[in-house]
Amino acid sequence: MPKRPPLTPLIAALPSTVPFVGPEAQQRASGRNFRARIGANESSFGPAPSVIAAMDEAAPDMWMYCDPDNHDLKVALAKHLGVEQKNVVVGQGIDGLLNIVVRLYISVGDAVVTSLGAYPTFNFHVAASGGRLVTVPYENDRESLDGLLEAVRREKAPMVYLSNPDNPMGTWWEAAEIERFIEALPETTMLILDEAYGETGPASALPPIDVSRPNVLRMRTFSKAYGLAGLRCGYAVGEEEIISDFEKIRDHYGVSRMAQIAGVAALADQDYLKSVAGKVAAGRERISIIARDNGLAPIASATNFVTIDCKADADFALRVMQNLLARDIFIRKPMAPVLNRCIRVSVGLDHELDVFAEELPKALAAARNG
Amino acid sequence: MPKRPPLTPLIAALPSTVPFVGPEAQQRASGRNFRARIGANESSFGPAPSVIAAMDEAAPDMWMYCDPDNHDLKVALAKHLGVEQKNVVVGQGIDGLLNIVVRLYISVGDAVVTSLGAYPTFNFHVAASGGRLVTVPYENDRESLDGLLEAVRREKAPMVYLSNPDNPMGTWWEAAEIERFIEALPETTMLILDEAYGETGPASALPPIDVSRPNVLRMRTFSKAYGLAGLRCGYAVGEEEIISDFEKIRDHYGVSRMAQIAGVAALADQDYLKSVAGKVAAGRERISIIARDNGLAPIASATNFVTIDCKADADFALRVMQNLLARDIFIRKPMAPVLNRCIRVSVGLDHELDVFAEELPKALAAARNG
Repeated sequence: MPKRPPLTPLIAALPSTVPFVGPEAQQRASGRNFRARIGANESSFGPAPSVIAAMDEAAPDMWMYCDPDNHDLKVALAKHLGVEQKNVVVGQGIDGLLNIVVRLYISVGDAVVTSLGAYPTFNFHVAASGGRLVTVPYENDRESLDGLLEAVRREKAPMVYLSNPDNPMGTWWEAAEIERFIEALPETTMLILDEAYGETGPASALPPIDVSRPNVLRMRTFSKAYGLAGLRCGYAVGEEEIISDFEKIRDHYGVSRMAQIAGVAALADQDYLKSVAGKVAAGRERISIIARDNGLAPIASATNFVTIDCKADADFALRVMQNLLARDIFIRKPMAPVLNRCIRVSVGLDHELDVFAEELPKALAAARNG
Repeated sequence: MPKRPPLTPLIAALPSTVPFVGPEAQQRASGRNFRARIGANESSFGPAPSVIAAMDEAAPDMWMYCDPDNHDLKVALAKHLGVEQKNVVVGQGIDGLLNIVVRLYISVGDAVVTSLGAYPTFNFHVAASGGRLVTVPYENDRESLDGLLEAVRREKAPMVYLSNPDNPMGTWWEAAEIERFIEALPETTMLILDEAYGETGPASALPPIDVSRPNVLRMRTFSKAYGLAGLRCGYAVGEEEIISDFEKIRDHYGVSRMAQIAGVAALADQDYLKSVAGKVAAGRERISIIARDNGLAPIASATNFVTIDCKADADFALRVMQNLLARDIFIRKPMAPVLNRCIRVSVGLDHELDVFAEELPKALAAARNG
């Protein structure tokens, strides 16, 4: 048997994991298509017609590399956010930005604080840098601001991750609470404030953008309300020097030309965004009613999904999910202790929620029968 | 002044560099559009009409995340290459794959061997992992296989990078020479064989695919002959375990849905690829004639560009490039010693090469005048 090039010790210790199994893999396994794709917090309403038109117009130009400066999109974002271009960096979705920011700040053994059950892809990137993940349990289905702060101080953690509004629970803190959290953070601790769901919740959950603090990075995306998850485009907003440090390692040609063009077009169509936010709110209400009609307890949500307390243990919620999957309804569920009593249902089109309403009672009955 | 979260020591030592300035930035600086975009080795012939149609059809579906397994594209690639799916990993262009592979194998201080003047983005990723770059001069405008081998042995390097056909010179080695190089490599040295230009050169330059060796990774892309640089889609082919190790750190949702769909469509249209290869060969011939007509010496090329020896020193070649840029002709040039006597001109459309033919004598005259 030949010898082989050794992986670095850090990498050799990592498992070959996929943070999420995709619905396509589940469809391949079952041999059937989902009747309702309401599991990945995608925007079933799709991108704006104006954005689809921009993509069509751009398709023949895909022979050109992208602008590595992401200039046009950064100009549009800066204007939209009321900051300067130098305060914005564009990446391959929030996932891509998390990958970079963890590499910038985390060395082997550094403590990184997050909530138990929060975004697995962040944890995946922390592992790849050898960071030591310190998890704080949710309290009353919200990320615990006090608990996160306490862990940061105790562990002298150089980084803390917080999503607001939150995934997987859909809950949120008001801006004033987030600002108090920021004030209380050590200046040497970088806050990654993931606002992927910022466009679907109450505006009061989002603090005004303040790019003066060198320890706060706010991340947003075109993957959710803008309906462009398939193109990979997100951005981070922060103090000038933090943003320029991304240049040290980011893949400059990594954000596709298509994503940049679609992002500019999407930002320009705020009317469409508002209409989507309205549909999302209506969809949350409908999912909540369906849940209550079945004796379950929907958790108030500021996102494009509703997490539903199945009012029993984790095994029961798992069986509910499995029975919905078996009925070709794609949903997901939180897996961390306490949160795992829930299933998570994304807002979908009317006909998808019809299917969910029809099948949920059957899935619950099947779950109750073991 | 507030304290701030410190970068890791490795990152803090890195400059904030951009490996390449994009033509868009040059256009913004001049306030004018290029008349000929023949500098970035893009495929001016564009993607196939069948691929554009596939993109248009897919645009409304961009609200869905991509398949993180890249299943359909891997199936198509495996069939195309005569290997199994487990031997293929898809990434965000070769750039994205280089980023990952360097992190997999290179720890701080490890020697990484490449040619002096070879792909800067590879070097950029090596720096980000703290690798120690060891460069080997070209010999007769080709990468020096003997020199690379000697450096690998001397430095006990865990990684060596070789492009074939080569960028920025356009030269190539026949498959038998590459195979001898592979045979002679230590089993513990990973060869990154960059075949980005594999579709435009002689088939005799590409060794048969052999996925039995755990120290050879071959990388190819849809950015060149397939005309999809703007979508970021490349792939690596290799032994099963190497490929599965990418799962440890790759951004699973990183290759956009659009790129995967376009890649499948592009692979399916081999007739278009052949037509492009023919146009590229004709374009190389035309650029060579223009060069010779102006007393310059084109270097025989297996790529979609021709590197032209300006038959003087580096300063002169730089002035030729600058004078072409000033005439709104986008080209680039090698910057490493010896190679830097050349300019590099990508195959473009007929009207672009017309402009090049018209302006080159003026640019040369201006360069000769200082």
